[in-house]
Amino acid sequence: MGMTIRPLAREDCEAIRESLVDCQAFSPEEIKMALEMIEAGLAGGLAGDYPLFLTECDGRACGYVCIGRTPLTRSTWHLYWICVHPRAQGRGLGQALQRHVEEFIRSRGGERIVVETSGRPDYQRARRFYQRAGYRALGRIPDYYKLNDDCVFYCKVL
Amino acid sequence: MGMTIRPLAREDCEAIRESLVDCQAFSPEEIKMALEMIEAGLAGGLAGDYPLFLTECDGRACGYVCIGRTPLTRSTWHLYWICVHPRAQGRGLGQALQRHVEEFIRSRGGERIVVETSGRPDYQRARRFYQRAGYRALGRIPDYYKLNDDCVFYCKVL
Repeated sequence: MGMTIRPLAREDCEAIRESLVDCQAFSPEEIKMALEMIEAGLAGGLAGDYPLFLTECDGRACGYVCIGRTPLTRSTWHLYWICVHPRAQGRGLGQALQRHVEEFIRSRGGERIVVETSGRPDYQRARRFYQRAGYRALGRIPDYYKLNDDCVFYCKVL
Repeated sequence: MGMTIRPLAREDCEAIRESLVDCQAFSPEEIKMALEMIEAGLAGGLAGDYPLFLTECDGRACGYVCIGRTPLTRSTWHLYWICVHPRAQGRGLGQALQRHVEEFIRSRGGERIVVETSGRPDYQRARRFYQRAGYRALGRIPDYYKLNDDCVFYCKVL
Protein backbone atom coordinates (compact mmCIF):
# COMPACT_ATOMS: atom_id res chain seq x y z
CA MET A 1 0.00 0.00 0.00
CA GLY A 2 1.07 3.55 -0.57
CA MET A 3 1.01 7.01 0.85
CA THR A 4 -1.78 9.55 0.57
CA ILE A 5 -2.11 13.18 1.61
CA ARG A 6 -5.50 14.67 2.44
CA PRO A 7 -6.96 17.42 4.64
CA LEU A 8 -6.79 16.51 8.32
CA ALA A 9 -10.11 15.57 9.96
CA ARG A 10 -11.22 15.52 13.58
CA GLU A 11 -10.94 11.73 13.81
CA ASP A 12 -7.20 11.99 13.01
CA CYS A 13 -6.44 14.05 16.12
CA GLU A 14 -5.52 11.17 18.41
CA ALA A 15 -3.09 9.68 15.87
CA ILE A 16 -1.53 13.10 15.35
CA ARG A 17 -1.21 13.68 19.08
CA GLU A 18 0.68 10.37 19.23
CA SER A 19 2.97 11.47 16.38
CA LEU A 20 3.70 14.77 18.17
CA VAL A 21 4.55 12.93 21.40
CA ASP A 22 6.44 9.97 19.92
CA CYS A 23 8.66 12.00 17.58
CA GLN A 24 10.27 13.47 20.75
CA ALA A 25 10.97 16.81 19.11
CA PHE A 26 8.38 18.78 21.10
CA SER A 27 7.96 19.86 24.70
CA PRO A 28 4.59 19.38 26.44
CA GLU A 29 3.97 23.12 26.02
CA GLU A 30 4.70 22.90 22.28
CA ILE A 31 2.40 19.88 21.90
CA LYS A 32 -0.38 21.77 23.68
CA MET A 33 0.08 24.73 21.32
CA ALA A 34 0.21 22.44 18.25
CA LEU A 35 -3.07 20.77 19.32
CA GLU A 36 -4.72 24.16 19.91
CA MET A 37 -3.73 25.21 16.40
CA ILE A 38 -5.17 21.92 15.04
CA GLU A 39 -8.46 22.79 16.79
CA ALA A 40 -8.40 26.27 15.22
CA GLY A 41 -7.43 24.78 11.86
CA LEU A 42 -10.31 22.28 11.94
CA ALA A 43 -12.72 25.09 12.81
CA GLY A 44 -11.58 27.26 9.90
CA GLY A 45 -11.04 24.57 7.25
CA LEU A 46 -8.71 24.94 4.27
CA ALA A 47 -9.85 28.54 3.74
CA GLY A 48 -9.20 29.44 7.40
CA ASP A 49 -6.15 30.64 9.30
CA TYR A 50 -4.49 27.22 9.68
CA PRO A 51 -4.95 24.76 6.80
CA LEU A 52 -3.97 21.24 7.89
CA PHE A 53 -2.88 18.26 5.81
CA LEU A 54 -2.41 14.69 6.93
CA THR A 55 -0.30 11.92 5.47
CA GLU A 56 -1.44 8.31 5.70
CA CYS A 57 0.92 5.44 5.20
CA ASP A 58 -0.52 1.96 4.69
CA GLY A 59 -3.92 3.31 5.68
CA ARG A 60 -2.69 4.79 8.95
CA ALA A 61 -2.32 8.48 9.86
CA CYS A 62 1.36 9.08 10.50
CA GLY A 63 2.13 12.76 10.03
CA TYR A 64 0.74 16.21 9.39
CA VAL A 65 1.57 19.77 8.52
CA CYS A 66 0.02 23.05 9.73
CA ILE A 67 0.47 26.21 7.64
CA GLY A 68 -1.08 29.67 7.48
CA ARG A 69 -0.96 33.05 5.81
CA THR A 70 1.43 35.36 7.66
CA PRO A 71 -0.62 38.29 9.03
CA LEU A 72 0.10 41.72 7.54
CA THR A 73 1.96 40.27 4.55
CA ARG A 74 0.78 40.14 0.96
CA SER A 75 2.02 36.69 -0.12
CA THR A 76 4.03 35.17 2.74
CA TRP A 77 2.97 31.99 4.53
CA HIS A 78 4.33 30.26 7.61
CA LEU A 79 4.89 26.57 8.00
CA TYR A 80 4.05 26.30 11.71
CA TRP A 81 4.25 22.57 12.40
CA ILE A 82 5.35 19.51 10.50
CA CYS A 83 5.67 16.11 12.11
CA VAL A 84 6.02 12.49 10.95
CA HIS A 85 5.72 9.58 13.37
CA PRO A 86 9.13 7.93 13.99
CA ARG A 87 7.87 4.55 12.72
CA ALA A 88 7.18 6.18 9.33
CA GLN A 89 10.24 8.42 9.06
CA GLY A 90 12.81 7.91 6.29
CA ARG A 91 10.21 7.19 3.61
CA GLY A 92 9.91 10.69 2.20
CA LEU A 93 6.60 11.51 3.90
CA GLY A 94 7.91 14.83 5.22
CA GLN A 95 9.11 15.80 1.75
CA ALA A 96 5.75 14.79 0.29
CA LEU A 97 3.91 16.96 2.85
CA GLN A 98 6.29 19.81 2.05
CA ARG A 99 5.67 19.51 -1.72
CA HIS A 100 1.93 19.32 -1.08
CA VAL A 101 1.79 22.54 0.92
CA GLU A 102 4.02 24.32 -1.59
CA GLU A 103 1.49 23.51 -4.28
CA PHE A 104 -1.41 24.52 -2.03
CA ILE A 105 0.24 27.81 -1.07
CA ARG A 106 1.16 28.60 -4.68
CA SER A 107 -2.46 27.95 -5.71
CA ARG A 108 -3.52 30.58 -3.11
CA GLY A 109 -1.13 33.19 -4.49
CA GLY A 110 1.57 32.54 -1.89
CA GLU A 111 5.12 33.35 -2.96
CA ARG A 112 7.26 32.31 0.00
CA ILE A 113 7.21 30.09 3.08
CA VAL A 114 8.86 31.05 6.36
CA VAL A 115 9.87 28.56 9.05
CA GLU A 116 11.19 29.31 12.51
CA THR A 117 13.02 26.40 14.10
CA SER A 118 15.48 25.61 16.82
CA GLY A 119 19.25 25.85 16.46
CA ARG A 120 19.78 23.03 19.00
CA PRO A 121 22.00 20.08 18.01
CA ASP A 122 19.05 17.67 18.25
CA TYR A 123 17.21 19.75 15.63
CA GLN A 124 19.97 19.28 13.05
CA ARG A 125 17.87 16.71 11.19
CA ALA A 126 14.99 19.19 10.99
CA ARG A 127 17.26 21.98 9.75
CA ARG A 128 18.78 19.67 7.13
CA PHE A 129 15.25 18.76 6.03
CA TYR A 130 14.44 22.43 5.37
CA GLN A 131 17.74 23.06 3.59
CA ARG A 132 17.20 20.07 1.28
CA ALA A 133 13.67 21.28 0.61
CA GLY A 134 15.12 24.55 -0.71
CA TYR A 135 14.84 26.81 2.33
CA ARG A 136 17.60 29.35 3.03
CA ALA A 137 18.64 30.29 6.56
CA LEU A 138 18.26 34.08 6.84
CA GLY A 139 18.84 34.84 10.49
CA ARG A 140 19.38 33.53 13.99
CA ILE A 141 18.33 34.93 17.39
CA PRO A 142 20.57 33.59 20.18
CA ASP A 143 18.89 31.97 23.22
CA TYR A 144 15.43 32.76 21.78
CA TYR A 145 13.57 29.68 23.04
CA LYS A 146 15.78 29.31 26.10
CA LEU A 147 19.49 29.45 27.02
CA ASN A 148 21.49 27.78 24.22
CA ASP A 149 18.33 27.28 22.17
CA ASP A 150 18.47 29.78 19.30
CA CYS A 151 15.76 30.50 16.77
CA VAL A 152 16.81 30.03 13.14
CA PHE A 153 14.71 31.66 10.41
CA TYR A 154 14.33 29.96 7.04
CA CYS A 155 12.56 31.13 3.91
CA LYS A 156 11.78 29.32 0.67
CA VAL A 157 10.79 31.41 -2.34
CA LEU A 158 8.17 29.57 -4.43
CA MET B 1 4.44 70.39 31.84
CA GLY B 2 6.21 67.12 31.43
CA MET B 3 5.87 63.62 30.22
CA THR B 4 4.32 60.67 32.00
CA ILE B 5 4.04 56.99 31.20
CA ARG B 6 1.18 54.90 32.55
CA PRO B 7 -0.84 51.82 31.58
CA LEU B 8 -3.14 52.51 28.63
CA ALA B 9 -6.87 52.77 29.46
CA ARG B 10 -9.96 52.41 27.31
CA GLU B 11 -10.54 56.15 27.17
CA ASP B 12 -7.14 56.61 25.48
CA CYS B 13 -8.12 54.52 22.45
CA GLU B 14 -9.30 57.36 20.24
CA ALA B 15 -6.13 59.41 20.83
CA ILE B 16 -4.03 56.34 20.07
CA ARG B 17 -5.99 55.57 16.90
CA GLU B 18 -5.18 59.13 15.83
CA SER B 19 -1.48 58.64 16.57
CA LEU B 20 -1.46 55.42 14.52
CA VAL B 21 -3.12 57.15 11.58
CA ASP B 22 -1.25 60.46 11.74
CA CYS B 23 2.23 58.99 12.06
CA GLN B 24 1.76 57.64 8.50
CA ALA B 25 3.88 54.57 9.16
CA PHE B 26 1.00 52.08 9.10
CA SER B 27 -1.37 50.73 6.48
CA PRO B 28 -5.13 50.53 7.24
CA GLU B 29 -4.70 46.76 7.72
CA GLU B 30 -1.87 47.34 10.21
CA ILE B 31 -3.90 49.94 12.11
CA LYS B 32 -6.82 47.49 12.32
CA MET B 33 -4.50 44.80 13.71
CA ALA B 34 -2.89 47.26 16.16
CA LEU B 35 -6.35 48.29 17.45
CA GLU B 36 -7.41 44.63 17.82
CA MET B 37 -4.30 44.00 19.90
CA ILE B 38 -5.12 47.06 22.04
CA GLU B 39 -8.58 45.54 22.65
CA ALA B 40 -6.97 42.21 23.64
CA GLY B 41 -4.41 44.05 25.76
CA LEU B 42 -7.08 46.02 27.62
CA ALA B 43 -9.01 42.80 28.27
CA GLY B 44 -5.96 41.03 29.70
CA GLY B 45 -4.39 43.92 31.60
CA LEU B 46 -0.70 44.14 32.48
CA ALA B 47 -0.61 40.42 33.38
CA GLY B 48 -2.23 39.44 30.06
CA ASP B 49 -0.85 38.67 26.61
CA TYR B 50 -0.40 42.29 25.51
CA PRO B 51 0.61 44.81 28.20
CA LEU B 52 0.10 48.37 26.94
CA PHE B 53 1.71 51.60 28.07
CA LEU B 54 0.78 55.12 27.13
CA THR B 55 2.82 58.29 27.11
CA GLU B 56 1.21 61.63 27.86
CA CYS B 57 2.82 64.88 26.94
CA ASP B 58 1.45 68.10 28.44
CA GLY B 59 -1.55 66.13 29.67
CA ARG B 60 -2.38 64.70 26.28
CA ALA B 61 -2.02 61.08 25.12
CA CYS B 62 0.50 61.04 22.31
CA GLY B 63 1.99 57.59 21.97
CA TYR B 64 1.92 54.01 23.15
CA VAL B 65 3.71 50.70 23.10
CA CYS B 66 2.33 47.16 22.93
CA ILE B 67 4.48 44.25 24.09
CA GLY B 68 4.00 40.59 24.97
CA ARG B 69 5.69 37.39 26.02
CA THR B 70 6.77 35.41 22.95
CA PRO B 71 4.85 32.10 22.98
CA LEU B 72 6.92 28.93 23.50
CA THR B 73 9.93 30.84 24.77
CA ARG B 74 11.25 30.99 28.31
CA SER B 75 12.26 34.65 28.60
CA THR B 76 11.78 36.33 25.22
CA TRP B 77 9.32 39.17 24.66
CA HIS B 78 8.17 40.92 21.49
CA LEU B 79 7.72 44.63 21.07
CA TYR B 80 4.74 44.54 18.70
CA TRP B 81 3.84 48.19 18.24
CA ILE B 82 5.33 51.49 19.22
CA CYS B 83 4.02 54.79 17.97
CA VAL B 84 4.38 58.46 18.86
CA HIS B 85 2.17 61.15 17.34
CA PRO B 86 4.14 63.30 14.85
CA ARG B 87 3.35 66.49 16.83
CA ALA B 88 5.21 64.96 19.79
CA GLN B 89 8.10 63.30 17.98
CA GLY B 90 11.70 64.39 18.60
CA ARG B 91 11.25 64.84 22.36
CA GLY B 92 12.48 61.42 23.43
CA LEU B 93 9.02 59.95 24.11
CA GLY B 94 9.77 56.83 22.06
CA GLN B 95 13.00 56.29 23.99
CA ALA B 96 11.16 56.81 27.27
CA LEU B 97 8.52 54.22 26.28
CA GLN B 98 11.33 51.85 25.25
CA ARG B 99 13.12 52.27 28.61
CA HIS B 100 9.84 51.79 30.44
CA VAL B 101 9.03 48.48 28.76
CA GLU B 102 12.60 47.25 29.25
CA GLU B 103 12.19 47.78 32.97
CA PHE B 104 8.73 46.16 32.95
CA ILE B 105 9.97 43.14 30.97
CA ARG B 106 13.04 42.74 33.18
CA SER B 107 10.80 42.83 36.26
CA ARG B 108 8.81 39.92 34.72
CA GLY B 109 11.96 37.84 34.17
CA GLY B 110 12.30 38.74 30.51
CA GLU B 111 15.83 38.63 29.12
CA ARG B 112 15.47 39.84 25.53
CA ILE B 113 13.14 41.84 23.29
CA VAL B 114 12.54 40.98 19.63
CA VAL B 115 11.23 43.44 17.06
CA GLU B 116 10.25 42.73 13.47
CA THR B 117 10.18 45.80 11.28
CA SER B 118 10.24 46.85 7.66
CA GLY B 119 13.41 47.24 5.59
CA ARG B 120 11.78 49.96 3.45
CA PRO B 121 13.59 53.29 3.00
CA ASP B 122 10.76 55.16 4.78
CA TYR B 123 11.33 52.95 7.85
CA GLN B 124 14.95 54.04 8.21
CA ARG B 125 14.06 56.31 11.11
CA ALA B 126 12.39 53.40 12.90
CA ARG B 127 15.37 51.11 12.33
CA ARG B 128 17.76 53.79 13.57
CA PHE B 129 15.58 54.16 16.67
CA TYR B 130 15.99 50.46 17.47
CA GLN B 131 19.72 50.49 16.80
CA ARG B 132 20.23 53.48 19.09
CA ALA B 133 18.15 51.75 21.74
CA GLY B 134 20.62 48.86 21.69
CA TYR B 135 18.90 46.40 19.35
CA ARG B 136 21.02 44.33 16.95
CA ALA B 137 19.81 43.37 13.47
CA LEU B 138 19.98 39.57 13.27
CA GLY B 139 18.30 38.70 10.00
CA ARG B 140 16.31 39.87 7.01
CA ILE B 141 13.67 38.12 4.91
CA PRO B 142 13.42 39.65 1.43
CA ASP B 143 9.97 40.77 0.17
CA TYR B 144 8.35 39.50 3.38
CA TYR B 145 5.61 42.14 3.72
CA LYS B 146 5.35 42.70 -0.02
CA LEU B 147 7.66 43.11 -3.02
CA ASN B 148 10.65 45.28 -1.98
CA ASP B 149 9.41 45.35 1.60
CA ASP B 150 11.70 43.10 3.63
CA CYS B 151 11.31 42.07 7.25
CA VAL B 152 14.29 42.93 9.46
CA PHE B 153 14.64 41.14 12.82
CA TYR B 154 16.14 42.94 15.79
CA CYS B 155 16.91 41.69 19.26
CA LYS B 156 18.00 43.51 22.39
CA VAL B 157 19.45 41.49 25.25
CA LEU B 158 18.44 42.95 28.61
